Amino acid sequence: MAHITLPEGLPGIRGPMAFRPETAKPLNALAEILLRRENSLSRGDRELMATYVSSLNDCFFCQNAHGGIAQHYLQCDMAFIDQVKKDYESMPLSDKLKALLSIAGSVQKGGQHVTSAQIEKAKARGATDMEIHDTVLIAAAFCMFNRYVDGLGTWAPQDRNIYVARGPRRAEEGYENFDPMERLAAG
Amino acid sequence: MAHITLPEGLPGIRGPMAFRPETAKPLNALAEILLRRENSLSRGDRELMATYVSSLNDCFFCQNAHGGIAQHYLQCDMAFIDQVKKDYESMPLSDKLKALLSIAGSVQKGGQHVTSAQIEKAKARGATDMEIHDTVLIAAAFCMFNRYVDGLGTWAPQDRNIYVARGPRRAEEGYENFDPMERLAAG
Repeated sequence: MAHITLPEGLPGIRGPMAFRPETAKPLNALAEILLRRENSLSRGDRELMATYVSSLNDCFFCQNAHGGIAQHYLQCDMAFIDQVKKDYESMPLSDKLKALLSIAGSVQKGGQHVTSAQIEKAKARGATDMEIHDTVLIAAAFCMFNRYVDGLGTWAPQDRNIYVARGPRRAEEGYENFDPMERLAAG
Repeated sequence: MAHITLPEGLPGIRGPMAFRPETAKPLNALAEILLRRENSLSRGDRELMATYVSSLNDCFFCQNAHGGIAQHYLQCDMAFIDQVKKDYESMPLSDKLKALLSIAGSVQKGGQHVTSAQIEKAKARGATDMEIHDTVLIAAAFCMFNRYVDGLGTWAPQDRNIYVARGPRRAEEGYENFDPMERLAAG
């Protein structure tokens, strides 16, 4: 049971967003810009960053919700996503993305953990200032979203396949038109 | 020097916000709602929460910028703010605020650190569901802001009195009309 009384049947962040639509608006606007709007980083790569940071924060809902969307964009399976979380260095990802995931991982620990060496490596592998900026802010934002979801003790379906099945729809729907009141059963 | 090339002379979060105004907009909208808009929690108490979480995250810029604003609202001195950061239980704050600061501190560690006992204590001391929601989201949001500021290696003035002197103006200005390009020297 969540720590406060939330609208029933809404998983993860949907409960608090329905409870407080005023704050849901900028939160969703931020997610839309960072994860979905035109960017030199693909949507799949950005969702993968969100998934990776959420797994470091051990947020079941976020890592599966965004993992399902990443899986859709990257056209991979759940084992691929899980392996990225465990050891992205060993995976067939671009060198640039690996350098950015390393920065995201440091941001998750705390901003001061990001080193000049990590930044230099990312730049040497072709990352632009904008890509580094967005990586840092995506990682920072998921340190917020993860804490929002878990800090209120929200409920989440435990069957991971549900999130995979909903990935394509979530990808299409986006964040700005997100309707938190939509019941899980609806799709 | 910051990790990416930011507009010169802008301290803390102002550099990245000027660099990427698209994301600055929802970030400032969120801060405005959480810290400044009509709420049963006073502006001073909300700025104190932001200051406390920023100190736990060891973010020099945020804890001083928001500490300066809290100091203005609460009409206290810097020693009071510092003592709240160090040991809020020993300070002349309401029992409700102490219970909410305890929740904020747990959110800083990670969402799952918030316990039912902490929530029950806050409710027993008069905290509403909305106040608990906003406390969790303020703490979560500052885990983002702090990482954004430090993860990009931004610059910040080291003289803490500067932040105190600017507190009243920051309080009046608010967040939504925040102009990141305003140079520090402007006052």
